[in-house]
Amino acid sequence: MSWNTFGRVLRMTTWGESHGPALGAIVDGCPPGLALSEADIQPWLDARRPGQNKFTTQRQEPDAVRVLSGVFEGKTTGTPISLMIENVDQRSKDYSEVAKAYRPGHADYAYDAKYGFRDYRGGGRSSARETAARVAAGAVARLVIPDVRIDAYVVEIGGDGIDRASFDAGEIGNNPFWCPDRAAAERWVKAVDEARLAGSSLGAVVECVAHGVPAGWGAPIYAKLDADLAGAMMGINAVKAVEIGDGFAAARLTGEQNADAMRPGGDGPIFEANHAGGIAGGISTGQPVAVRVAFKPTSSILTPVETIDRDGNAAEIRTKGRHDPCVGIRGTPVVAAMMALVLADHKLLHRAQCGPER
Amino acid sequence: MSWNTFGRVLRMTTWGESHGPALGAIVDGCPPGLALSEADIQPWLDARRPGQNKFTTQRQEPDAVRVLSGVFEGKTTGTPISLMIENVDQRSKDYSEVAKAYRPGHADYAYDAKYGFRDYRGGGRSSARETAARVAAGAVARLVIPDVRIDAYVVEIGGDGIDRASFDAGEIGNNPFWCPDRAAAERWVKAVDEARLAGSSLGAVVECVAHGVPAGWGAPIYAKLDADLAGAMMGINAVKAVEIGDGFAAARLTGEQNADAMRPGGDGPIFEANHAGGIAGGISTGQPVAVRVAFKPTSSILTPVETIDRDGNAAEIRTKGRHDPCVGIRGTPVVAAMMALVLADHKLLHRAQCGPER
Amino acid sequence: MSWNTFGRVLRMTTWGESHGPALGAIVDGCPPGLALSEADIQPWLDARRPGQNKFTTQRQEPDAVRVLSGVFEGKTTGTPISLMIENVDQRSKDYSEVAKAYRPGHADYAYDAKYGFRDYRGGGRSSARETAARVAAGAVARLVIPDVRIDAYVVEIGGDGIDRASFDAGEIGNNPFWCPDRAAAERWVKAVDEARLAGSSLGAVVECVAHGVPAGWGAPIYAKLDADLAGAMMGINAVKAVEIGDGFAAARLTGEQNADAMRPGGDGPIFEANHAGGIAGGISTGQPVAVRVAFKPTSSILTPVETIDRDGNAAEIRTKGRHDPCVGIRGTPVVAAMMALVLADHKLLHRAQCGPER
Amino acid sequence: MSWNTFGRVLRMTTWGESHGPALGAIVDGCPPGLALSEADIQPWLDARRPGQNKFTTQRQEPDAVRVLSGVFEGKTTGTPISLMIENVDQRSKDYSEVAKAYRPGHADYAYDAKYGFRDYRGGGRSSARETAARVAAGAVARLVIPDVRIDAYVVEIGGDGIDRASFDAGEIGNNPFWCPDRAAAERWVKAVDEARLAGSSLGAVVECVAHGVPAGWGAPIYAKLDADLAGAMMGINAVKAVEIGDGFAAARLTGEQNADAMRPGGDGPIFEANHAGGIAGGISTGQPVAVRVAFKPTSSILTPVETIDRDGNAAEIRTKGRHDPCVGIRGTPVVAAMMALVLADHKLLHRAQCGPER
Repeated sequence: MSWNTFGRVLRMTTWGESHGPALGAIVDGCPPGLALSEADIQPWLDARRPGQNKFTTQRQEPDAVRVLSGVFEGKTTGTPISLMIENVDQRSKDYSEVAKAYRPGHADYAYDAKYGFRDYRGGGRSSARETAARVAAGAVARLVIPDVRIDAYVVEIGGDGIDRASFDAGEIGNNPFWCPDRAAAERWVKAVDEARLAGSSLGAVVECVAHGVPAGWGAPIYAKLDADLAGAMMGINAVKAVEIGDGFAAARLTGEQNADAMRPGGDGPIFEANHAGGIAGGISTGQPVAVRVAFKPTSSILTPVETIDRDGNAAEIRTKGRHDPCVGIRGTPVVAAMMALVLADHKLLHRAQCGPER
Repeated sequence: MSWNTFGRVLRMTTWGESHGPALGAIVDGCPPGLALSEADIQPWLDARRPGQNKFTTQRQEPDAVRVLSGVFEGKTTGTPISLMIENVDQRSKDYSEVAKAYRPGHADYAYDAKYGFRDYRGGGRSSARETAARVAAGAVARLVIPDVRIDAYVVEIGGDGIDRASFDAGEIGNNPFWCPDRAAAERWVKAVDEARLAGSSLGAVVECVAHGVPAGWGAPIYAKLDADLAGAMMGINAVKAVEIGDGFAAARLTGEQNADAMRPGGDGPIFEANHAGGIAGGISTGQPVAVRVAFKPTSSILTPVETIDRDGNAAEIRTKGRHDPCVGIRGTPVVAAMMALVLADHKLLHRAQCGPER
Repeated sequence: MSWNTFGRVLRMTTWGESHGPALGAIVDGCPPGLALSEADIQPWLDARRPGQNKFTTQRQEPDAVRVLSGVFEGKTTGTPISLMIENVDQRSKDYSEVAKAYRPGHADYAYDAKYGFRDYRGGGRSSARETAARVAAGAVARLVIPDVRIDAYVVEIGGDGIDRASFDAGEIGNNPFWCPDRAAAERWVKAVDEARLAGSSLGAVVECVAHGVPAGWGAPIYAKLDADLAGAMMGINAVKAVEIGDGFAAARLTGEQNADAMRPGGDGPIFEANHAGGIAGGISTGQPVAVRVAFKPTSSILTPVETIDRDGNAAEIRTKGRHDPCVGIRGTPVVAAMMALVLADHKLLHRAQCGPER
Repeated sequence: MSWNTFGRVLRMTTWGESHGPALGAIVDGCPPGLALSEADIQPWLDARRPGQNKFTTQRQEPDAVRVLSGVFEGKTTGTPISLMIENVDQRSKDYSEVAKAYRPGHADYAYDAKYGFRDYRGGGRSSARETAARVAAGAVARLVIPDVRIDAYVVEIGGDGIDRASFDAGEIGNNPFWCPDRAAAERWVKAVDEARLAGSSLGAVVECVAHGVPAGWGAPIYAKLDADLAGAMMGINAVKAVEIGDGFAAARLTGEQNADAMRPGGDGPIFEANHAGGIAGGISTGQPVAVRVAFKPTSSILTPVETIDRDGNAAEIRTKGRHDPCVGIRGTPVVAAMMALVLADHKLLHRAQCGPER
């Protein structure tokens, strides 16, 4: 099956391939009357944009977004918002090798097994280029939840993690890695550059925290806020794991250690800890919603790897061309966009069932 | 919102509370003509059933399932299958304390924040008792994918993991922990019993592997097989993290280490490794589909914890009564059931789009 | 496919066959805090109940509903509401004839063509007995829209229509036909009884008007209020046509005749006419929402009809047993229930997108 | 709510306003490997295109479709197909009157009531221009059901119906009315032209018959084939009524008259009649699927009509500009497109549940 719509009442439908003429997203169900122009979206796309430094792919894409519908006189009308980004730098290149043989770690073999053939140019639909559409749609979702602040940053590259004691949110935008720890960022310059020069790649762990989510969002039992976040994050290209709150570490705590004790506060409880990552029973508690996401190393590497070709014969393949040495870096704005989409959807879902009678 | 339906074309809708008269599941979209009786479901429920040994809650529930519709002359008709389990041992007890104050780590506060009040008897709808309905529905899903074998087992309790070298699938059913390593199971007897006697609790990590999934299942981009599995698993009570394949460990590998090289095989490729956990680009590759799930320690503990009451005043609460010292244990059959539901749904989704013309 | 869930955010899932042990509905997404008990549902079921007079089937079913979940201390909790009705009078009878041959006009042949076999006892899942579940769920939906009054009544039986000049809403409950015109009701006594005695059957037209629907409900473009009503009504057993407002008559008006002119009113416009049936562009206008529904004559008749058997051979079949001589009569409460379900769903959908920020 | 996606497994999402830069449709879930180019879509758009004769609006739109994704080397890839049509002739005109006051019969008032404001240029999203996207998507759906032939034609304009005895399918394309009766077409020339010159408008009835639908498509109970068709048709702009098979006339037949008797045939039964319109119990029977749709007269008329302005004051409005004197005519290809979309979706839904095991 092909299933390119995300969300329940605030819905995003994306389309487009790596080397087609354009890609885009339709955002449906957005409340009316929100101020929206291209300028509200472009900065988020710029954050994800390729070709900005040597730590990301050298493909040059302006990623200029156009709003083709759903906005009138500068405000959302409540009708579907069509966002389109033209592909500019689909460098003509020789795809004969990748057309014939499957790149291990990529979706090549799986797409062929499913659909019988595939658009092999740059990975076609399975390319991470699709995530530009998510970032654009995520920018719209942010307008639906103006009181929520979403921080996303890299906490580990190639197994080298940040020092939590040195966490400085102000540093996140100051380095090419979205790293909140200046010292770690300096170490990563060397590590990522070495991987790049070697034609190798590194994995990364991204953390995303949403502040200002009120208690009560989430739809038990099968659209729990944490379950929807897990699905949203695991669906990002190259993601292999998702944690909420303490995640795997929680499995090593005792019940006493893991309890997030509460005491009276002015506006709801004050929690003594947030092992739960802001979600209990699938519903937000009013604490920061915290998720951690593992990206595998980019599958495109220069080292030849054993594989098979479309006819089932033995082959060897190495991935030439422009690639991110660490996809987790550019994945960071995508994680933030998916957080925004899930939260905005759940705000509206909550209002549907429990909203005030007018 | 309340959202109690799971799946896209094979759909399960569950209902019921911990202390209501009954709970159940409606399974819709099941292919016709499959042999089905209560005897196909009961063994899976028995595996999850409480009160079987001292390592699980002492609540005594026969969990006898009735098939109320959708089956005629021993075969599924293609119409909705209604499964019902009566609650028997809703021990009358004093809920006045839990009615007034919020148990930290439980859904109590979140449910009140969302709905304005809650059924506080045994956690109401947020009780893990709901997972009995999933296990029953999962038994039906298994009939849809007869060529798939699903193994689920505990690989870690309280931070004490199994020795992979001692992995013996034959051991899984031989101990109360679904543990494939006999030595680990012996250690866990002591650890879990100590936690139980102390009124404390432990977390666990459950692994689930599906063998026999053909290449091609999965619905990119927003119903990827791994994304759906992540959402399914994260939605199980007490789960805080999900990994596919190598998961977080993949973030520490290089691209070369992480590549699952292929060579020619008789029926599709032979993979040299399975770091990917059987899924690439959201689509199954024909390798075993592998997922790992972290359960937090049971939130119900005897140690008093600081909290607030419904009026916002300071309070203290300790959870008396019958509880699992380690919910991950009884969560294991639930993980397997969710795996079955996701895979069966994706088999049908794949057939919808790519199935053979008659 | 089997698709037994109705609605988008307020969702009903039904299950059960004519001759199974029970049938039921799960209502999901209902707002919390609404007072609900069996007594709120039973009167609507009683209105649809068989065996009450000689103009309906003589099957004796108390149709006593049980609320199995979703209600605590007399109020909806926001979790799924499970409603169950036990079948009592599944008279043991000889089904060998209907098991072998297809009853024309019934779903027998279509079910076999689709599923390969069928539960032939009383029509199985295709029996109108399923509509009891809708009526029960509709009673819950009514609680969601307390300011809306829904009138449903029969305006034509066997081609004999009411006199609009004699319309008296107070008459509707005074005769066995839900007829608002006393004189017509008297004529129908004779017509329906003649059909009954002859083992024949008659069609009917049911009208349903919802008063008090505010302007603004409806979800363009593919969940328009009129489109959802049309789907809801056409899905009722034996329905073959649906009109909104003037319906087919509107196709015979000029644009001038069809215009629903407006003038200023105290609370929104005052409309000079309601050709539109209260819906424009798929959105309610604040006028009464009016729909008209055609029921075919009951397909079960005593006259032998030419058919084929399961092996494709020529056969002849006559439907013995208990049947409604005019299904449109007992279809009337079902039409009202579907109106309630659609409106309640759209109220919540509207609130999701356009509801007030708290 | 805004809900711009249609279908269950084959899904169309449309976007765009009458006077925006473009409009389009995303078709998701299409099987892979189907030959598709713009040339497969353009003829259907040309059939609906405005400005072709004096009986339709004089807006000049080439309606040239571009396929932006989902096709590679001339074949569908199984990924979303993005179709875009640029708006060319959004004639600059003075919208100050329609911006201020509500046109009766149009969606103006309802949109304002729902969303708080509206894009008033040419009706914005509520314009029938949106149906171009449906026709484009419908062309793709036709490729999914190559064995089905869909005929759509006008059977009545302004109350003047065709003579069934003169039905000639070959005539349908020979006149500007999609009329299968040459004599009726000649009468309609005069009637429609008179309405046009008078600035008035006429209603129409469109019939659509799908040949070659096999028995077994349809998803009881809440996605019945007839219910989905009814919703699909009622959601077309200006449609007020839908009939399946005999529709309202069936309500005037006896059970004997309405029975579609069967006798043995070479490939399934031979039916003696098709009162049912090819659907029983919500499932196709193998007979032609027949639906009839009533279009109201165009609401845009030159005669001034009493209305209110946005401030609630009395006003009068007449709709100047370019309009169809009878929207049912250009609605005919839209009816056919919706038939194709519903049938293709149900083919895939049926295959999901009942398709052959490979």
